[in-house]
Amino acid sequence: MIKTFYTYFRSSTAYRIRIALNLKGIVPQETVAINLREGQQHSEEYRKINPARSVPVLVLEDSTVLTQSLSILEWLDEVYPTPAILPSEPVQRAKVRAFAQAITSDIHPLNNQRVLHYLMGQLGVDEPTRKIWIHHWIQLAFNTLEQQVSGGAAPFCFGDSPSLADICLVPQWYNAERYGAKLTEYPKLGQIVKNCLDLPEFDAARPEKQPDCDL
Amino acid sequence: MIKTFYTYFRSSTAYRIRIALNLKGIVPQETVAINLREGQQHSEEYRKINPARSVPVLVLEDSTVLTQSLSILEWLDEVYPTPAILPSEPVQRAKVRAFAQAITSDIHPLNNQRVLHYLMGQLGVDEPTRKIWIHHWIQLAFNTLEQQVSGGAAPFCFGDSPSLADICLVPQWYNAERYGAKLTEYPKLGQIVKNCLDLPEFDAARPEKQPDCDL
Repeated sequence: MIKTFYTYFRSSTAYRIRIALNLKGIVPQETVAINLREGQQHSEEYRKINPARSVPVLVLEDSTVLTQSLSILEWLDEVYPTPAILPSEPVQRAKVRAFAQAITSDIHPLNNQRVLHYLMGQLGVDEPTRKIWIHHWIQLAFNTLEQQVSGGAAPFCFGDSPSLADICLVPQWYNAERYGAKLTEYPKLGQIVKNCLDLPEFDAARPEKQPDCDL
Repeated sequence: MIKTFYTYFRSSTAYRIRIALNLKGIVPQETVAINLREGQQHSEEYRKINPARSVPVLVLEDSTVLTQSLSILEWLDEVYPTPAILPSEPVQRAKVRAFAQAITSDIHPLNNQRVLHYLMGQLGVDEPTRKIWIHHWIQLAFNTLEQQVSGGAAPFCFGDSPSLADICLVPQWYNAERYGAKLTEYPKLGQIVKNCLDLPEFDAARPEKQPDCDL
């Protein structure tokens, strides 16, 4: 059903989709890397597929194009319901989604490449100031998220199996480490990330394990 | 079932919830305004309710606290399914959600008050540069969204009834107008916004019609 998955090893939004595909045991017919650093997302060919010039994108067999990672994750859970990445009870679903959205709305949009380029380019922000900006938004949200997880009582953000919350947390934690954010104040989140990465489905989705990784 | 709705007339994320409550004919037992400009979100009392110090928040009769507007909107649609704000078919749901998320992830997080304060304060950005920043992110996303709606063929973003897409578009359009963004390039989006605001459920949710409006 999924013809093509457009990804980039370092994109944390594509990382979310890789985890979900692995958890659900879905293998797209082809996986195509779009090198964001080299600007491949701006090519005429790719803009025909996704005018927003971003990854991830799923193209289905009937040529339907799905964009926006959270929307794709919800679609995956509706069409491939097992194992579920959202609980069945509405309030629990709301809590998982709210945790995920604190990452996808309150951290990631402020720290992604296009925004960092704008800060350095148009606003002339220097490297140390850019780092403070990045850390600021991570810490502001993580301060709250650390309080939302049970911690110790359950291996994952919400219970005994990984959910949308863990799928968003792990790539954001990867970014936070990469940018040198101080994470010692978030021991519960840190433990959850470790628990996740112990699972082969999360481990295989790591940026450094992707074929297009050029580090 | 909904005990308290915490809102602020000018918050576009609270505006989303006001529209959805009106469309579904839900009246919370009480509506409490949190004056974000006066910093009421930082009070000890409010931080106990929502440590993330943001609106909107719904508190249910059993004291459950729901945060993050998209998560609340999904919860509302699950618990009060009529009229639906998401289509029933998964690919159509994905398209509506992707449109909404282009606003909730790609525009709003970059242009909300806490980020604009950071730009002016910590980064020392001046007023004209702040305006260019605001317009930049609106136009980048609207350029794509204008292509995603049918335009003319249907009164709303996706078909004959308002969806999550319209619920996110109308408050974002309000912000764009307020910040003086050039919107003439988006005639289809503009017409949809007009069609929405012709409905009493959208009209009654306008910022200037809220009891806490102090303009």
